[in-house]
Amino acid sequence: MTGKPAPACHSGPDHLCMPEDARKRAARRLSIARGHLDAIVRMLDNPDAYCVDVLRQIKAVQGALSGAGEVVLRGHLEAHVATASTRGDSVEIVEELMEALKYT
Amino acid sequence: MTGKPAPACHSGPDHLCMPEDARKRAARRLSIARGHLDAIVRMLDNPDAYCVDVLRQIKAVQGALSGAGEVVLRGHLEAHVATASTRGDSVEIVEELMEALKYT
Amino acid sequence: MTGKPAPACHSGPDHLCMPEDARKRAARRLSIARGHLDAIVRMLDNPDAYCVDVLRQIKAVQGALSGAGEVVLRGHLEAHVATASTRGDSVEIVEELMEALKYT
Amino acid sequence: MTGKPAPACHSGPDHLCMPEDARKRAARRLSIARGHLDAIVRMLDNPDAYCVDVLRQIKAVQGALSGAGEVVLRGHLEAHVATASTRGDSVEIVEELMEALKYT
Repeated sequence: MTGKPAPACHSGPDHLCMPEDARKRAARRLSIARGHLDAIVRMLDNPDAYCVDVLRQIKAVQGALSGAGEVVLRGHLEAHVATASTRGDSVEIVEELMEALKYT
Repeated sequence: MTGKPAPACHSGPDHLCMPEDARKRAARRLSIARGHLDAIVRMLDNPDAYCVDVLRQIKAVQGALSGAGEVVLRGHLEAHVATASTRGDSVEIVEELMEALKYT
Repeated sequence: MTGKPAPACHSGPDHLCMPEDARKRAARRLSIARGHLDAIVRMLDNPDAYCVDVLRQIKAVQGALSGAGEVVLRGHLEAHVATASTRGDSVEIVEELMEALKYT
Repeated sequence: MTGKPAPACHSGPDHLCMPEDARKRAARRLSIARGHLDAIVRMLDNPDAYCVDVLRQIKAVQGALSGAGEVVLRGHLEAHVATASTRGDSVEIVEELMEALKYT
């Protein structure tokens, strides 16, 4: 790589890998979302649970997942997409990202 | 209630509550999503994890949560919204649902 | 219909139709969105247009369409879904709505 | 620039600008969406319009706008983000894009 170095990115044996900071922050956020999801599953054990409360909780977890997704996406853009031209794999990296963003 | 009976809906002491079938199906789907989320958190322990793989997994869990949300929403529409006019609380029930749907 | 009357809803010859207020408000919002969309198309005639500005404008129009969609949805919930049990077509009306909400 | 050249991107006097191909394709798609939106506005002139039909049409236009947004995003990733490291503005370009993607 001749350009600017990617931010702290452990170089895998045969592939790019996540900047450590993004990896740890995403893990932290997903753990919290996991706890929240746990609480919703328990909430549904109670026959008194009300639909709209459950809907709201599900939306909250979806928001948390989006937040974690943003952390991962930002790390990817900085570490791998912004450096694609210097590596020479712009077409592949953009194609792959567009594909991954599609399934919202 | 004079119309069609709402599908099996346990009547809470002072509020509407979820049709049992929707409650059980949503719980089952959310448990699966929780397992999936667990797997992503573990995946992030590995310094070799790749951003786009993580993004794809997060999207998959979001899809599962949307699926669970649909089960809950359908149950709510059938059991509580479709019967609102007979109960006389249409305005409140619609307002509440619109509010809950907003935070996507 | 024996329950509460639906809010000002012209009764079509063989189908339910939109409450007039929702129809007019949705039309107004969609006209504004159309003007905005027009402006983006013109903006794209300029070779100096910048991708991120265009993305932001597209998002703004999407927001306006969501707003119009909310007006229509609220009118539908109040006029047609909340009264479904009295009409006796809850199953069909909920099915139809779930189907329409799916394609986001 | 030492890496792969960005796809046909007219260089604005003081800023990056859209690859011509993306600009033309996005314009074409947005014109079609504009015609579709026009049809919905006219549809709402008819007191017989049905809520769920209108909802479906709005969703269709939203889908068309998403498609146009994807064209713009892909062009931006290829022409501007993938080359950011060689230009030396990775941080700014990623920040700007994350901000623009946020308002979904």
